[in-house]
Parts: sequence; structure tokens; C-alpha cells
Amino acid sequence: MAVFIDISMSLDGYVAGPNQTLEEPLGQGGEQLHDWAFRLEAWRKPHGLEGGETGPDGDLMQANIARTGAVIMGRRMFSGGSGPWADDPNSDAWWGDNPPFHVPVFVLTHHEREPVEKEGGTTFHFVTDGIESALEQARAAAGDKDVAVAGGAQVAQQYLRAGLVDEMTVHLAPILLGGGASLFGDLGTDLRLKLTNVLEAPLATHLSYEVER
Amino acid sequence: MAVFIDISMSLDGYVAGPNQTLEEPLGQGGEQLHDWAFRLEAWRKPHGLEGGETGPDGDLMQANIARTGAVIMGRRMFSGGSGPWADDPNSDAWWGDNPPFHVPVFVLTHHEREPVEKEGGTTFHFVTDGIESALEQARAAAGDKDVAVAGGAQVAQQYLRAGLVDEMTVHLAPILLGGGASLFGDLGTDLRLKLTNVLEAPLATHLSYEVER
Repeated sequence: MAVFIDISMSLDGYVAGPNQTLEEPLGQGGEQLHDWAFRLEAWRKPHGLEGGETGPDGDLMQANIARTGAVIMGRRMFSGGSGPWADDPNSDAWWGDNPPFHVPVFVLTHHEREPVEKEGGTTFHFVTDGIESALEQARAAAGDKDVAVAGGAQVAQQYLRAGLVDEMTVHLAPILLGGGASLFGDLGTDLRLKLTNVLEAPLATHLSYEVER
Repeated sequence: MAVFIDISMSLDGYVAGPNQTLEEPLGQGGEQLHDWAFRLEAWRKPHGLEGGETGPDGDLMQANIARTGAVIMGRRMFSGGSGPWADDPNSDAWWGDNPPFHVPVFVLTHHEREPVEKEGGTTFHFVTDGIESALEQARAAAGDKDVAVAGGAQVAQQYLRAGLVDEMTVHLAPILLGGGASLFGDLGTDLRLKLTNVLEAPLATHLSYEVER
């Protein structure tokens, strides 16, 4: 059972642009990071949308969806907010009644909250005792499947720094964002990566790495 | 006649590591950026070394060498120094009597200096009146061939910001440097790139882009 990061990054290293707001959760220009995905059936279907293209990049996304038994994300990725839930204008998150995850999602937060069960198999669990606890719970929920660390950047860095990530797929978009959330930040040089696969596709280059330890 | 950037970058966006010194001109860990190149005959030959491997990445490097009629670089890439030449302990640069360029090289500097002719076709010209002047001189020297902007990061950014670059090849090494010279810095979002080629090879993924204007 593996732990993997699957994330879209600009050529200058950002997974969200500058000035993230409720109206523009991915920051200025950040939506473009996902242009490669929006056109794919593999993305549209879990989002309740019809149509879309198929192809090798669709297959890659479909394979990563199929292997995912649980998801871990940060509070900011969940709602864009921080602090007590009662004060969070987006405490119900971005995804409406039927979120695209369809598996248990573990949200890292400093503020306790009862689980929220949504339609389609997504239940949000709120974890206040740290990344290792979240991973333990996610592993238990995932069964034989893998655990996806969805983001954002700070959460990805925390898991990478702790040596808890086995694989990473970076969808490299041919854009510059000029600022925002840096995927690797000052993570430093301790991380050893081995490139295992490259897929060239419209609007992104899909790079798969094994994290060596 | 095109202007192109050909540069090796870490996955976290650096073209040199932190703490560049005369002993470690590429900064901590920065040498690893070029591991993919050191093993290639196409790299070894212009550096006066025998042997080395051939293959698609060697062909790519060879093609970029063959198309290059002149090179532009920054003062720091040339010697690691700054300020008056008389005070620069490395004013003769890193490459000895027979540098690997074998074409005219235009060095951007604030300090005037007579040209330095080396063996093997490399002459260093020192340009004190700006990037456009350097490009004009490089174009004239290159004849029918192309002009390579070799680096460092700040020089690459200046040419990109001025809209003077046609193509870019980024050799993406599967390493993190955690700091140092960021290739794109805060260049921002005005740059539009179109991915034209991807080559997967040992120790680097070679990404070619057209700069759209």
C-alpha cells in the first residue's frame, strides 16, 4: 500500500498562483494548472460531468483515481479558510453535495469537527493530531488501496519531509505563475527522486517519480 | 535566426544551488544538475575529454551545440565575481585556455574590458551597454546560426522579460536544491510557453518550449 502525491505544478514550481481568495481558490492564473485535466473524461466523470476526451493522460488519471482508497488534504485546500469552523464562510468546502473524491477524505486542521458525510462515498474526517495520525487513519480506511496526499503545498512538504511519501506524480503545466504556493518550498536536498515515467500530453507533461529513502 | 535558452533546472526550479563560491560555482548540490550531461560524448568532446555515451539526449545536446553561433552569459556565470575586473580573483573564468564554447561569447558586465581571445574559437567580448546591445552583437557574430543565452538565471529572466527569447530547452533534473538561483524568479505570468518536445533520458527530462508572443 503506497502513499502518493498527485499534483499539478507550473514550470516555475507553483501549485497555486498568488492571492488565493474564495472567488479564486487557486490564485491568480492558477486554474490554468488544471487545463490539462478539465478536458478529460476521467476528470469530468467523478465531477458529475458528461463527455470529455480519453487518451494516455486520461488513462493515467483514471489509474490514479482507481488506486486511491483515501485522500489526505490540508484545511486550506478543503475550505480556503483557517481558524474556528464557525467563522469559516466556506466551511462546507468547494464541492457541493457530491464531491469528486468518492472515498474517505482526511482533512488536517487545528480545529475539531465531527465527520461530514456527503453523497457518492465521500466522507470528510477532520484530524487534529497531526500528519502521522491522519496517515494512519487514511491507511485504515483505504484497505488494500493507496493513500493520496492531495495538497496543498505545505501538506505535501510535511509528508515529504517526514519521509512518508512513496511516489509522486507531477503534472507539469507549461505556464509560469510568478508566485503563490511553491510545491517544494525550501524542502531542501534530502529528498532523492527517481524518474519512473514521463508522459507527454496536451497542456501538461506528466512526470512520475519514486521517492528514494 | 533564433534566440534560445538551454539550461538545466532542478525540479524545484533552481539552476544553481545555495551558497555559490569559487570552489563550488554551482552552489551546494548544483553539480548534480549536470550529471545527465557529464556522461555524454556531446558534452565531453567540446570540453576536450574523450569517450562518453551517445543516444537521443546526446543528439539533442549536439544539435543545440551545432546551431549555436554565439553565446551570451552574465558576469557571474563567467567568473563568479562582480565589480572591477582587477579585483576579480577569477577574471580569467573557469574554462582555462580552451573553453568549451568554440564561438564568440558575449559577457554582460558593468565593467569595461578588452576582448579575450582563447584557443579553439572562443573569444570573450565584454558588453557594458545592456542586453539588447549584447544580442545585437551576438546576432552579428552568429551569422546564419542561432544565439544561445547560457545563463545565469538573472540573465535568462532579463531576456525573457524583454521578449527576446524564441525557444527554451529546460533539462529538468530529478533533484531538489532547496534554494539558490531560481530560473524564473518572479518573472510572472506574461510568458506564454508551448511545449514542442519532450525527451525522457537518464538523469533528466528534456523539455523544449516555444516562447509565444
